[in-house]
Amino acid sequence: MAVYTEVSDEALRAFLAGYELGELVAFRGIAEGVENSNYALKTTAGDFILTLYEKRVDPTELPWFLGLMRHLAARGLACPEPVAGRDGEALRELAGRPAAICTFLPGVWPRRPSVAHCGPLGTALAALHAAGEGFSAERPNALGPQGWAPLLGRCRPNGDTVQPGLCAELDGHLESILAAWPAGLPRGQIHADLFPDNVFFLEEARGKPRVSGLIDFYFACTDILAYDVAICLNAWCFEPDLSFNVTKARALLAGYNAARPMSAAEMEALPVLCRGAALRFLLTRLYDWTNTPPGALVTRKDPLEYLRRLRFHAQAKGVSAYGV
Amino acid sequence: MAVYTEVSDEALRAFLAGYELGELVAFRGIAEGVENSNYALKTTAGDFILTLYEKRVDPTELPWFLGLMRHLAARGLACPEPVAGRDGEALRELAGRPAAICTFLPGVWPRRPSVAHCGPLGTALAALHAAGEGFSAERPNALGPQGWAPLLGRCRPNGDTVQPGLCAELDGHLESILAAWPAGLPRGQIHADLFPDNVFFLEEARGKPRVSGLIDFYFACTDILAYDVAICLNAWCFEPDLSFNVTKARALLAGYNAARPMSAAEMEALPVLCRGAALRFLLTRLYDWTNTPPGALVTRKDPLEYLRRLRFHAQAKGVSAYGV
Repeated sequence: MAVYTEVSDEALRAFLAGYELGELVAFRGIAEGVENSNYALKTTAGDFILTLYEKRVDPTELPWFLGLMRHLAARGLACPEPVAGRDGEALRELAGRPAAICTFLPGVWPRRPSVAHCGPLGTALAALHAAGEGFSAERPNALGPQGWAPLLGRCRPNGDTVQPGLCAELDGHLESILAAWPAGLPRGQIHADLFPDNVFFLEEARGKPRVSGLIDFYFACTDILAYDVAICLNAWCFEPDLSFNVTKARALLAGYNAARPMSAAEMEALPVLCRGAALRFLLTRLYDWTNTPPGALVTRKDPLEYLRRLRFHAQAKGVSAYGV
Repeated sequence: MAVYTEVSDEALRAFLAGYELGELVAFRGIAEGVENSNYALKTTAGDFILTLYEKRVDPTELPWFLGLMRHLAARGLACPEPVAGRDGEALRELAGRPAAICTFLPGVWPRRPSVAHCGPLGTALAALHAAGEGFSAERPNALGPQGWAPLLGRCRPNGDTVQPGLCAELDGHLESILAAWPAGLPRGQIHADLFPDNVFFLEEARGKPRVSGLIDFYFACTDILAYDVAICLNAWCFEPDLSFNVTKARALLAGYNAARPMSAAEMEALPVLCRGAALRFLLTRLYDWTNTPPGALVTRKDPLEYLRRLRFHAQAKGVSAYGV
């Protein structure tokens, strides 16, 4: 639920005067996204999304994110395209925050992803990876393997209050994941947070879902492409009871491989990449869980859901566990 | 920030099949409104708002609210118009909640209302009162004078924790307000909650704001028309520092009187009606302030802002205090 910064109507009108977007028609806060403030903006030129970047986003990184989105959109990926103002600049300031207007994407994110979503999701992820080629600026993954030990260290003071022995168990996982972390796999621009609420779908004639948009590129970075697949396996293929749906995994991997066939080395690395991805979301959730002040206007997400995922992946005997 | 009930995409599609609204194009939660869950809904037929009524709304009262909105819209008032399904019913069920789709209204609510907003606001309020004529079903005002003593009683256990002596001061105000409460003033359907976030404006050619829509009729009821004016004087004419802006009040009253001239008796009653309105919002805020569990996902509103307003009105020597 995200509107952290209120925008006065005067400030909004002054801001819009910097664009060639016609007249303001409507402006409503959107209750989605957790990092930034998002507004649905309608002008006589159409529908847009206005984002005010809040303090968890480093303003010096915004040109990279907006540049990547522009690059991907120009290559035909259905993602928000930053709209430049009259002066050619897309990154501007509003209400004391960095701000940008992007194009609006149609579609609905799936509250309960089904097998039918997972194939198109995999294909869309492969399309994202292909479209990212040629965007040469690199952004290191701050939440990648090098970041996990320090993050676990910051969780240590309160981590075991969530579950006794949790930090020791995570120490063990971290050590074995880092020891097995693959080198030499294909790298590129990855989304790194492609959860269901970041993927819009529309239905085709016979009720078949197709991806209409990928959003929220503010964790995107330069890393192992197959790690993005592993993040999606974690985010899309577990049921609400945290059982692993191998049919969804098979559909996701088939959709991805149809558009960008993974090498044998990439496929073989999936179990450890999945363990790493589970640990990454476990650690940030654990940190937030133990450091969110009571009364804060955010919904904390249960870190232990990712411990269950991590344990599943740790028990996987090779990529066959994922239906391949 | 209001999305309390999540709607699965399957449930949404099944729900929309009950309407003649074409194909689903987009569906986003709206971060506005505090009582219900609101979604911006776009179909091939246009833009709509889908509301799921949460537990603070009595479902047996929904037909009255929707009937009033339909009546007002049919008389040309710019308010949300309930959209009937294929079976003629506008009030339906979705995700276990009563739900309705209404038309989308353009405009932006003023984060910092200016004098220029207050005149058109007054005129729009008078138009609402005129359009309500002929809607004969009555809804008593549960938060009207009869409700204030019981509400103060429920605030008594914790009220003085907000400010020592607060309950005793409110006892005194309540007694004098009830003793002076006017009888025989014109009654009708009132909005009863016409705060700035419930009034959308668009700008005309020379930057002059005009009202493009009135929303959120879920406190509407049958009561003294001038009491609605008093609610607006409280909601629109105090500055952020809680000083009273008599120029705004004059503009609001002039706008109202131009469209529906108030009688001398109504004008003379404004100070006590304003005291009553201030007490009403003070009491519900005080109750929420002292009864909202820590960590709840709602922003509590400071009740003492309304104590400042109440004291201002109590010191008003007649309607001249409001610029008339």
